[in-house]
Amino acid sequence: MASESELISHISQIFSAGQAPHVLVGIGDDAAVVEFQNSPKTRGTKRLVLAADMAVEGVHFNRSWSSLFEIGAKVTGANLADICAMGATPLYILVSAALPKDFTVEEAGQLAQGIVDEASKVGAVVVGGDLSRAASDHLVISLSVAGEVYEPITRSGAQVGHLVIINDYPGASAAGLELLREGINDERSAQHKRPIIDYEAAREFALAGVSSMIDISDSLASELGHIARASGVGIEILSDPRMNVHAGEDHIFIATISPHLPMPRKAIEIGRVVLGKGVRLDGALLLHEGFKHFDQ
Amino acid sequence: MASESELISHISQIFSAGQAPHVLVGIGDDAAVVEFQNSPKTRGTKRLVLAADMAVEGVHFNRSWSSLFEIGAKVTGANLADICAMGATPLYILVSAALPKDFTVEEAGQLAQGIVDEASKVGAVVVGGDLSRAASDHLVISLSVAGEVYEPITRSGAQVGHLVIINDYPGASAAGLELLREGINDERSAQHKRPIIDYEAAREFALAGVSSMIDISDSLASELGHIARASGVGIEILSDPRMNVHAGEDHIFIATISPHLPMPRKAIEIGRVVLGKGVRLDGALLLHEGFKHFDQ
Repeated sequence: MASESELISHISQIFSAGQAPHVLVGIGDDAAVVEFQNSPKTRGTKRLVLAADMAVEGVHFNRSWSSLFEIGAKVTGANLADICAMGATPLYILVSAALPKDFTVEEAGQLAQGIVDEASKVGAVVVGGDLSRAASDHLVISLSVAGEVYEPITRSGAQVGHLVIINDYPGASAAGLELLREGINDERSAQHKRPIIDYEAAREFALAGVSSMIDISDSLASELGHIARASGVGIEILSDPRMNVHAGEDHIFIATISPHLPMPRKAIEIGRVVLGKGVRLDGALLLHEGFKHFDQ
Repeated sequence: MASESELISHISQIFSAGQAPHVLVGIGDDAAVVEFQNSPKTRGTKRLVLAADMAVEGVHFNRSWSSLFEIGAKVTGANLADICAMGATPLYILVSAALPKDFTVEEAGQLAQGIVDEASKVGAVVVGGDLSRAASDHLVISLSVAGEVYEPITRSGAQVGHLVIINDYPGASAAGLELLREGINDERSAQHKRPIIDYEAAREFALAGVSSMIDISDSLASELGHIARASGVGIEILSDPRMNVHAGEDHIFIATISPHLPMPRKAIEIGRVVLGKGVRLDGALLLHEGFKHFDQ
């Protein structure tokens, strides 16, 4: 078993490679200290955006299917997508992990490399965290991200008459998971093991002036349910053979936008916001729990 | 088994009770959005301070000894103390947890109450987080805190000739743990089950102009080792029968201060910063690993 100091030393090197001048105190003190300033040419008031994601081995990922690099990248992507779905820019990441007894320094390094690789896609840097021994042989990873935003885009801004848009069709991650469960582990499962997330699409949607935004964690149906409930509206979408409304984990961005605004380049129109409540697919009410049950 | 929506609803109510106007978007969206502004009467540049702490059942706490309220308060205190040890003010907390299958809504509520109770001591509020099912019957809690500071106090500022001060004698938590291990669970173990942390002392030390500061997580010996190493100095302390230099988890604040500054009211002088390296107790080199091993 590696000592914590060896692990910390190895991981710190991987994380510190990306550290920028705006990180005043990085890994190795009680806490990280970072710059968080309004830009000189102020676009208004900059707000702090905070989100956390936890991934548990055997619940969210499977080490016999996915590499530690993929697992690190995937949990990081889920967390970054949450920040981007607010129309915000991710900046700083805290990484906590409970490591099984037999976890090696090399394995911790692979996990850290995956985190750094995904974070680098949006320019975010790891500034701290906490390492612990796990009580069982299940790895637990917990990330927190701090970002910045001028005008947050919440789930509650959808208005009747607005169009519903996505940046891609959900389903690739779920299809990949199905293959993995059947014992088939090839490139068709790549999107499940490590989703490719189009962070640029979230930025484009935000700049286009969307009225609400969310990313698909659970399913298109349940995320639309969140928007409908938070906004006090109904949503009608049309089916498309390329789109699995019950598939999760692709982290595709869903937004609503006024029909009077120019359509973002990456937008695929799938429906519209209507009076009422609930989510309808081709006119039929879609079941949407809104939250997954723990005992699924 | 409770559904996630029941759990989230119950916990959100407990966490939201303390939500202030500076929380623009709280629990229930992709991310929290909070104000982080320089005060009108600026005292310079305000920086963002970030720290994370993870606590694993069977490693950091024991549910047969401690109530969930105590466990929630304890992990929160450890995280808040890290922020305060930077001379910073804790503001916003993210709470993630992996909950065992048999965890009830009431138990989640007790944990949340403990977190809120400790956070309220410094005026910090819970703004978000993530709930997950655990893969085993071990509860895992992961907290992140965002705070603010004008001039951070790191571990690296100690200078030769400065005095070493603490705000209290460490040892009560470790003594309580020993009793618990012997099967004695009474009020003498209170400091282990839920440390009373003197956050006000950290603030007083910071205002007094201390040159370095840290809180005791592992032990006085190892934390002094951190300061000595980071500052490139040696530290000499004198023994005291009230002080256990190898005891951890009391979250007492250690600082160094110039002898030319007025002594903070809560300061207990225990030694001084000297040329050289390492930590000496009554002249003898103290063993200090600096980091705990995972396999302890």
